[in-house]
Amino acid sequence: MSVASSNPLPASSGPRERETSSSSADRLDLAGYLEECRGLAVEEIRGFIPRGSAVRPILYDLMLDYPLRGAKGLRPALCIAACRALGGRLHSALRTAAVIELYHNAFLIHDDVEDGSDKRRDAPTLHRLHGAPQAINVGDAMLALALQPLLDNMRDLGVGTALEVLQIVARMARESAEGQAIELAWIARGAYDLRDRDYVRMVHKKTGWYTFIAPTIAGATIAGADRSLLRRLGRFAAMVGIGFQIQDDVLNLTGAESRTGKEAMGDIWEGKYTLMLLHLLRIAGPEEQRLLRRILGKRRPPSPSATPGAHGSSSDHAAEVLDRLRATLAEKVARALIAPETASEILRSAEEPDRDRYRTEDDVHEVFALMRHHGSVDHARSVAGLYARRARRELDQLHRDIAPSVHRDFLAALVDYVVQRDR
Amino acid sequence: MSVASSNPLPASSGPRERETSSSSADRLDLAGYLEECRGLAVEEIRGFIPRGSAVRPILYDLMLDYPLRGAKGLRPALCIAACRALGGRLHSALRTAAVIELYHNAFLIHDDVEDGSDKRRDAPTLHRLHGAPQAINVGDAMLALALQPLLDNMRDLGVGTALEVLQIVARMARESAEGQAIELAWIARGAYDLRDRDYVRMVHKKTGWYTFIAPTIAGATIAGADRSLLRRLGRFAAMVGIGFQIQDDVLNLTGAESRTGKEAMGDIWEGKYTLMLLHLLRIAGPEEQRLLRRILGKRRPPSPSATPGAHGSSSDHAAEVLDRLRATLAEKVARALIAPETASEILRSAEEPDRDRYRTEDDVHEVFALMRHHGSVDHARSVAGLYARRARRELDQLHRDIAPSVHRDFLAALVDYVVQRDR
Repeated sequence: MSVASSNPLPASSGPRERETSSSSADRLDLAGYLEECRGLAVEEIRGFIPRGSAVRPILYDLMLDYPLRGAKGLRPALCIAACRALGGRLHSALRTAAVIELYHNAFLIHDDVEDGSDKRRDAPTLHRLHGAPQAINVGDAMLALALQPLLDNMRDLGVGTALEVLQIVARMARESAEGQAIELAWIARGAYDLRDRDYVRMVHKKTGWYTFIAPTIAGATIAGADRSLLRRLGRFAAMVGIGFQIQDDVLNLTGAESRTGKEAMGDIWEGKYTLMLLHLLRIAGPEEQRLLRRILGKRRPPSPSATPGAHGSSSDHAAEVLDRLRATLAEKVARALIAPETASEILRSAEEPDRDRYRTEDDVHEVFALMRHHGSVDHARSVAGLYARRARRELDQLHRDIAPSVHRDFLAALVDYVVQRDR
Repeated sequence: MSVASSNPLPASSGPRERETSSSSADRLDLAGYLEECRGLAVEEIRGFIPRGSAVRPILYDLMLDYPLRGAKGLRPALCIAACRALGGRLHSALRTAAVIELYHNAFLIHDDVEDGSDKRRDAPTLHRLHGAPQAINVGDAMLALALQPLLDNMRDLGVGTALEVLQIVARMARESAEGQAIELAWIARGAYDLRDRDYVRMVHKKTGWYTFIAPTIAGATIAGADRSLLRRLGRFAAMVGIGFQIQDDVLNLTGAESRTGKEAMGDIWEGKYTLMLLHLLRIAGPEEQRLLRRILGKRRPPSPSATPGAHGSSSDHAAEVLDRLRATLAEKVARALIAPETASEILRSAEEPDRDRYRTEDDVHEVFALMRHHGSVDHARSVAGLYARRARRELDQLHRDIAPSVHRDFLAALVDYVVQRDR
């Protein structure tokens, strides 16, 4: 596997860098590499939108909302780095990198609706801004728009390679939906009997495939990698992916909201099955078990709807019931049919989220304190470290087949990044 | 364009019929043809599910729910009939017919979530049975599973034809999302200024493309039709599609719930933009205009949530507020802090959907009465008839290039069916 020297793009230390055969470890700027790839992918995504489309303002502009919010750019960077590290050209990988980024953002939009999340990348989620109907449809439009560029790949990559990329993307979409189904089924049945390997299998499917495996092996496929190399790169990416997701969950608990751009401890509010929660459920004493089951048996409190438009969602119905109740009580008090303090009590009891039904701030902190006490966060960090080491070992083997370059350095740096990052 | 005589499938008067060159108008059984094609497509869809998948019960079984409920089977029948009428083989069209049926059902699941619909084909909608999160994800899984069979087409149809089919499906998914975005934007801004041609453009994209145009031209493409024939078949399918959708809207108003399998007058409850509503908004007098705007400015009343599982949606929050209010009021009455009749009044005012906010049964009947009075339903029927006549003219021209067969008869019979059906 040799490194191509025919790259026509200008030299830099980023993904556009002209390849040399010397090591360039000292020149890698990880943040810059990620940011440059993200920018390239976003520009490419703009090009997917049909020219002169009359529905641009009501559909395609919404489609660009999440991509423009400034993500990490992991997926396009991995796809580009894998392709370039194996001697492929930036131009060849760019379209596929952008398609995977588009899929990623479509999944995020649908996941946010499914989880009822309020924030994404420091701003309200798309369904909070435009309503769940538009958000679901925008996600569908993104999945629809992703097809044409994959067909256009035939022109530049040849039919065989373009088809292999299509197969990877088809598998990626399937794995992701399967992983999501597993997680939703756990939530629906209130599962308490999960092992670490159940978690690993779920995140491998739900996020590992589309965040790490698909971009890496698609990039390598475009560069012409053989089956053996693809298999080993796939293993490397799978290990990094599991480490990354565990770290993501750890950051959700311990990271500041301002850094992660997500709701602090949102995972505990949601009752999300993380490695920390599974560990805690295994290790907690009988008394703590009862407490945990009581808290996890509750629901996340409903948040007020921000859906605009003439057709409100049913989620603001409760707010309207309370509005009517307030008006009626005021009228009864004015007519001296009811004492003001009785009216207040009635209103308060209707307003107050039922402590037996909805998780409270105290519940969330209780769960977090137990995790800290039992070392669940340390356990999760150590499992993330284990997967990072496995990824590192896999990459060390791969170094025999991949010549030194800033792109290879990017892959290596990523292993440390995913478990050491703080956002 | 000659009719193939090499079809290896057993003879019948349905889509499997062995072709002859004689006309077979007397042998067409429209309902049987549709049903046979639907059955074939459902069997094919079963084959798309990965073998031995561990997530079958929590994902893929839900995927089969809508297809198994017994639809009309229009899309697979059109795809198969177009292919066979032009001399193609059933086997060649079947996979594509099933993919389009899969897309259709994925769109239905997402549409039902977006519209907050309660019923589909005589049973609760998927999100009412399993919650919106699972329903959205099942739709995504169906879109993901649709890719592989389209790639498998390469083996049987050759790369060129398989790619053309992929292009058609990509365009179909895009048109459908664009049409849905147009409709959702009308709802969000409470549009009152729409012309019949705005409606025609919207339904052409939202349902015409994936229900009629894509199945027809995909089937014809598989049979090897040339560009000119594809263009004319596409025009035919577009005309039928518009007539069909108008008739669908008419049936929603005038058809019995037991026949359509949908909620009676659900479109008026939803405030859906139909040709009848547009006509009424144009023709109503100033007094009626004010009444209509008041009714359309309201929302559909929220329906109680049927979402199972530990994590309830926020839509049942209102029910819980009312439960708490009932308990508190009962307690205050028991302690003689409030008169029973005052308590009843408070509860009733909180329970009763605000007449200024939610559409009532009376509102819906008022709109329907105005439509009848102003001949809006007749107007819609006459526009549907106009498109059916255009489709018929297009087909008469096409008859010069398409030899007589039961499949050609099916296409012809469909024109009458779409505007004359009662379900």
